[in-house]
Amino acid sequence: MVNQLYFFNMKSKLLYYLCFFIIFSISISCQKSVVSIVLVHNVDEYNNAVTNAKAGDEIVLANGIWKDVELVFKGEGTLDNPIKLKAETAGEVFIEGASNLKIGGKYLEVSGLYFRNGYTPSKTVIEFFADKETFANNCKVTNCVIEDYTQPNKEDTDHWVEFWGRNNELSNCYLAGKSNFGPTIRVFLKGNEHIKNYHKIINNYFGPRPRKGGPHGETLQIGDSGTSMTPSNTIVSNNYFDRCNGEVEIISSKSNNNEFRNNIFFECEGSLVLRHGNYATIDGNIFIGNDNSNFIGGIRVINTGHWITNNYFYKINGSEFRSALAVMNGIPKSPLNRYNQVTDVVVAYNSYINCKSPFNFSVGANVDKKDVLPASEIRSERPERTIVANNLIYNETNGEYPIVNYDKVDGVTFKNNLINSDNKSDVKSDGIITKNFEVNKLLDWLYVPTQNNEDVYVGFDFDTIKTDLFGNVRRELNAVGAILVPVNENKIKINKKAYGPNWFTVEKVKQDAKIINVSSDVNLQNEIQNASAGDVIVLNTGVYNVNQSLVINKRITLKSADSTSKTILNFIENKQGAAFQMHPKGNLILENILLDGNSDQDAIATLDKNMSSAFNIWIKNSEINNFKSVLKVSKGSFADTVYVANSTIKNCINGIQLAEEIEDKGDYNAEFLFVKDSKFEGVQKNVINYYRGGYDESTIGGNLKITNSEFTNCGKLEETNILIKSRGIVNVEISNNKFLNNPVKLIAILWGEKGQKPLNNTISNSGKFEIQQNLKLKLMY
Amino acid sequence: MVNQLYFFNMKSKLLYYLCFFIIFSISISCQKSVVSIVLVHNVDEYNNAVTNAKAGDEIVLANGIWKDVELVFKGEGTLDNPIKLKAETAGEVFIEGASNLKIGGKYLEVSGLYFRNGYTPSKTVIEFFADKETFANNCKVTNCVIEDYTQPNKEDTDHWVEFWGRNNELSNCYLAGKSNFGPTIRVFLKGNEHIKNYHKIINNYFGPRPRKGGPHGETLQIGDSGTSMTPSNTIVSNNYFDRCNGEVEIISSKSNNNEFRNNIFFECEGSLVLRHGNYATIDGNIFIGNDNSNFIGGIRVINTGHWITNNYFYKINGSEFRSALAVMNGIPKSPLNRYNQVTDVVVAYNSYINCKSPFNFSVGANVDKKDVLPASEIRSERPERTIVANNLIYNETNGEYPIVNYDKVDGVTFKNNLINSDNKSDVKSDGIITKNFEVNKLLDWLYVPTQNNEDVYVGFDFDTIKTDLFGNVRRELNAVGAILVPVNENKIKINKKAYGPNWFTVEKVKQDAKIINVSSDVNLQNEIQNASAGDVIVLNTGVYNVNQSLVINKRITLKSADSTSKTILNFIENKQGAAFQMHPKGNLILENILLDGNSDQDAIATLDKNMSSAFNIWIKNSEINNFKSVLKVSKGSFADTVYVANSTIKNCINGIQLAEEIEDKGDYNAEFLFVKDSKFEGVQKNVINYYRGGYDESTIGGNLKITNSEFTNCGKLEETNILIKSRGIVNVEISNNKFLNNPVKLIAILWGEKGQKPLNNTISNSGKFEIQQNLKLKLMY
Repeated sequence: MVNQLYFFNMKSKLLYYLCFFIIFSISISCQKSVVSIVLVHNVDEYNNAVTNAKAGDEIVLANGIWKDVELVFKGEGTLDNPIKLKAETAGEVFIEGASNLKIGGKYLEVSGLYFRNGYTPSKTVIEFFADKETFANNCKVTNCVIEDYTQPNKEDTDHWVEFWGRNNELSNCYLAGKSNFGPTIRVFLKGNEHIKNYHKIINNYFGPRPRKGGPHGETLQIGDSGTSMTPSNTIVSNNYFDRCNGEVEIISSKSNNNEFRNNIFFECEGSLVLRHGNYATIDGNIFIGNDNSNFIGGIRVINTGHWITNNYFYKINGSEFRSALAVMNGIPKSPLNRYNQVTDVVVAYNSYINCKSPFNFSVGANVDKKDVLPASEIRSERPERTIVANNLIYNETNGEYPIVNYDKVDGVTFKNNLINSDNKSDVKSDGIITKNFEVNKLLDWLYVPTQNNEDVYVGFDFDTIKTDLFGNVRRELNAVGAILVPVNENKIKINKKAYGPNWFTVEKVKQDAKIINVSSDVNLQNEIQNASAGDVIVLNTGVYNVNQSLVINKRITLKSADSTSKTILNFIENKQGAAFQMHPKGNLILENILLDGNSDQDAIATLDKNMSSAFNIWIKNSEINNFKSVLKVSKGSFADTVYVANSTIKNCINGIQLAEEIEDKGDYNAEFLFVKDSKFEGVQKNVINYYRGGYDESTIGGNLKITNSEFTNCGKLEETNILIKSRGIVNVEISNNKFLNNPVKLIAILWGEKGQKPLNNTISNSGKFEIQQNLKLKLMY
Repeated sequence: MVNQLYFFNMKSKLLYYLCFFIIFSISISCQKSVVSIVLVHNVDEYNNAVTNAKAGDEIVLANGIWKDVELVFKGEGTLDNPIKLKAETAGEVFIEGASNLKIGGKYLEVSGLYFRNGYTPSKTVIEFFADKETFANNCKVTNCVIEDYTQPNKEDTDHWVEFWGRNNELSNCYLAGKSNFGPTIRVFLKGNEHIKNYHKIINNYFGPRPRKGGPHGETLQIGDSGTSMTPSNTIVSNNYFDRCNGEVEIISSKSNNNEFRNNIFFECEGSLVLRHGNYATIDGNIFIGNDNSNFIGGIRVINTGHWITNNYFYKINGSEFRSALAVMNGIPKSPLNRYNQVTDVVVAYNSYINCKSPFNFSVGANVDKKDVLPASEIRSERPERTIVANNLIYNETNGEYPIVNYDKVDGVTFKNNLINSDNKSDVKSDGIITKNFEVNKLLDWLYVPTQNNEDVYVGFDFDTIKTDLFGNVRRELNAVGAILVPVNENKIKINKKAYGPNWFTVEKVKQDAKIINVSSDVNLQNEIQNASAGDVIVLNTGVYNVNQSLVINKRITLKSADSTSKTILNFIENKQGAAFQMHPKGNLILENILLDGNSDQDAIATLDKNMSSAFNIWIKNSEINNFKSVLKVSKGSFADTVYVANSTIKNCINGIQLAEEIEDKGDYNAEFLFVKDSKFEGVQKNVINYYRGGYDESTIGGNLKITNSEFTNCGKLEETNILIKSRGIVNVEISNNKFLNNPVKLIAILWGEKGQKPLNNTISNSGKFEIQQNLKLKLMY
């Protein structure tokens, strides 16, 4: 397309003007107005068309790549005759580079655009706001894609879609891959023009949002604490949320009267959180987890008057913040941006299948921390006037503890809840009834009772709950749980094609990984560069001398041809810098490799900036010797996983360093760091340095697991006198290791409040573990 | 009635049952249901009737006094056939003593009752709440009176009407004289059953509520900070508020979506305050003040999204909290019970006539007090996104300062406001336009422009402002200000009979005061007891020996027959206690009287407890010698006014003491203390001791004025070394006095922040004045 534009520019003015307007005149019988359809090829043509557009007109972007275009779409359409901005062919208009779109006016429709290969030069990709005087009302963006259109610097904040005005719609779009700061979608309420907006966010496919390692990674945020008292009335329905793992809140509802209906949350590591604001409706949603993760959450409740009905939870095994139902404690007379008490909430007719302990009450209770936190942070107010009724809990195994409580549960009324196990929780009630009912498995994730349990509680306004999850009417026939039987089999299957654009295929065709055998005389960097993501480069045994940094910007495996003998990569002559330089999306797997350095360079380092996406490192059966650092990362970089197994790290000055996020705002440099069955010998400082700072209960990550490993003669130059530094990391396990002759005072300081404790380690001449119950952390608010 | 009941009880069972039910059977043609009308004479009969009542039935309370009755009215009426509880004759059923009424169920109507001569034994007089399971929906109390039905102990809290449930109504009632703690009416929102209640408080006459001397004296409170996020949707319209002076808030709106329409606020010393909650509508109300008071307020604004339209303000000359329009500063991230920022408020089409400085912005700004207050009390957030448009300001004189600002005014947009004076305020804007328009005076308080100023600003959603104050349609014809001309003369007159019960006359017939001449050999106490309120007892010159305390429980004047010679009341032989004992409603006027004591008793003292109503003391041209105290009051007592003029106070141990409210919750013992043209000689301590404690910006009272007086040889035994103690009293003037040979360090400590400073006093050998800019006060929240 760029070439085409160039071509056009070379042609005569006559040809140019001939091409300029291709106008189809359509007489509309009664109004006799003439509707124009204008095909535009560049921004000038586009602006001209927008300036001249009348109700009913269509502006058609020519197929091809539109690079570095900041499109403003202003106009006044009507309900019957919107002005349309569309792709010549949906999905074949690529908006790339430094581009964005602002929409202002009435009844405008945008469709068919594909944002990729770039990022917005402003704070938004698509904004229902053209300028201070012109925001959008009754406008629609539909059938579009925004994919990986993320800021190169993770710490730069933007939003992909900003809602302003009223009655706007985002529908049938696909959005995925935002990895920088800022919710993917944000609804603004600053001004009476933007409240009671009844925006619709419907039928979209929210593709994976990677773990961000700190807050501000929501997929959707509606309002903020400063406007949390306003009615938003935003409708979020029939969307598919696929592994939206950005942070602990998939959706952060921060305003009143929002509705979340019939969405599917598939393996999302977070929750639908009613963070601020009141009177939300959460009805008919499906939350699907799995056996492997306890990060996948359900619904977290704060504030007043929410109705949570007809939702279905499968294998949601998160706890506390991420439990299937997390009802929080509030702060007395809470500051506007903290935690109001939960009152007047109704949780009715939900089903919890194979969720071990679905109900968590008084989550966040922290009276015990009043020595380290100010009074305005102490969540001591228990839920009040809250009704939990007609819910169904079924567990194939281990269902005896349906309720976890962090405080007394005296403000919650339980009525007619059924569970197929004994209730051995501390919280007991006549309203939690053990009954040996049976279920049928209709789909992998869908279990329904074999027969309706018809004894339901009828509470105040319960007659407003008119149907079940699949639309069956609750009237004469009614039952506990989200689903009445028999179900209509046509309604239960998840059709992923119903979400997102009709022209876009979510499931990418997986290419088979190639095996590339490489001899020791080739340029290894060239081989890596030419390989495709996922390819495996097999090295002969023996020594490869590498005199440059190897750039890793995709998934690459380097392995020895002989699994019993390590290939040696000798970087002693490399003067460029790190042996491996990790770029965004870099995913390095080393198997049976020995890296040898000159003690001046790092073994693995990230770019200094613009680490826009996460990287991963897997070191298996390998050895890393004589480097300045094993791993050195930059601020703003983020490793999803750093994995070291059956490996040896020897004679390095620094070890694995993930401690550049020092602003104490809840961010951290890696989600997971695993060390197992490995040896650290003669690492002089920062053997492991992994940090998360700031008191923010909503970043509950950082995961460190060190098992079955040996640390010998390490920490000689460690100024803190701590061998393994993990301050602020929430989940830490250090077990079954040996610590021998490490000249430090402490092996690690563990965080008692988070349940951290050393387990079965052997310590000899290596200091000891210390447990601090409550860490003093910098307040973020 | 009591006697009648007794009579009935003596009669035979047969007669009893014959009398029991007087049933009128009324066939309703289509439904063929039988409706009962049951006249009941006592509680048993009443309870029986209630138990048996069906939709459409009437329970009729027999005329007379019902003493110590706790009536519960439960039942299930229907929209077309409510169950009625009514007086045999409206206004002739007197509910007295320890009585109350609880209402629970549906479609119940209460009418014609008169609560007086007593007080509730519970926390409410009338409650739309029978028990925890049974509150009222669609119920009505109408045509009733609650008068002076106040707790004997001012510090006991109750509410006269409590709203619970939904769709209840208080209409055409008269409520006056509540002087104890607690709002007269309170709407509760605790529970989903009580929100979106659409209660109606309409056509009532709120008679005088006396000054309370501290907080908790609202006439109406809707919700509280703990439920301030909930929609209440309470409608308060067409009521007359007559001198509701209880505290600085006449109405305290603490929930969302309340509507205040077409009410009249006549000389009420307070404001309609949008204290918590958002999106109130204040439309078409009339606020009438006068030239004498700067306590009479208008509307005070906090929080988000209120619309203040079509209101008319006449001579509202309060400032700060009590200005005609007080827009407050908020606290950043305010605690739930403090001050949210003002945002998105619309103030449009209001008229301000002879209100000197009607607009006060950033009221409560207190950044300068950050040394004495915690951060969570600092109001630094200015109003934002607020529109002030199409308002009319007219002043006959002194209109040049329409705006007072306590901070920058950068978040308020002014549009098309008209003023007939130059604007010399600091705040200037193109939207504040000086225009020399004329007005017509249609009534004492009603001035309208001679012609419409038609250039109006049309802001967002301004088309929802459909009419003016008197119902004229704003469409083709529209104009700045609350009133379009010409006005319909039939609509402008205030008909006080339209408010309150149809059988009740607000205006009491004033009895002429009697003059009672009394010789020195009579029992003075008997004479006082036999006199009527307002009577004047004239004493001969010479000496009256009084050997008992004189009880004052009404307005009584004691004066000397000869205005040039003081009558001497000699209490030396009185061993009972104070010379004068003030009871509730006591109002003592002394003219040309000399009181002589024995130094063991107080000259004037209140009861120790149960001072249910305010007292007053007026001492003119009199002398008070040789008492233990001039005035001694009890905790919980309250003097509206203590006035000393042209009088001498000599050789007393203590002076005027109004300092028993020491709990530091904002309460105080007297509204006004005036001392003028008087002499204090040899008063040894507590010469004047007047106290208000607690940081509560909403109790802005305590008024001390000492002028043209002399203090000589006073304060000898004063431990604090302060002659005049006025800590915490907000309004203090000490001017043109002489202080001679008083052995103290300080004459007074004045409160700089409140503008207090000594003026033109002569000081000799008497210490000095000290000014403290910011008092450290105990936080109340």
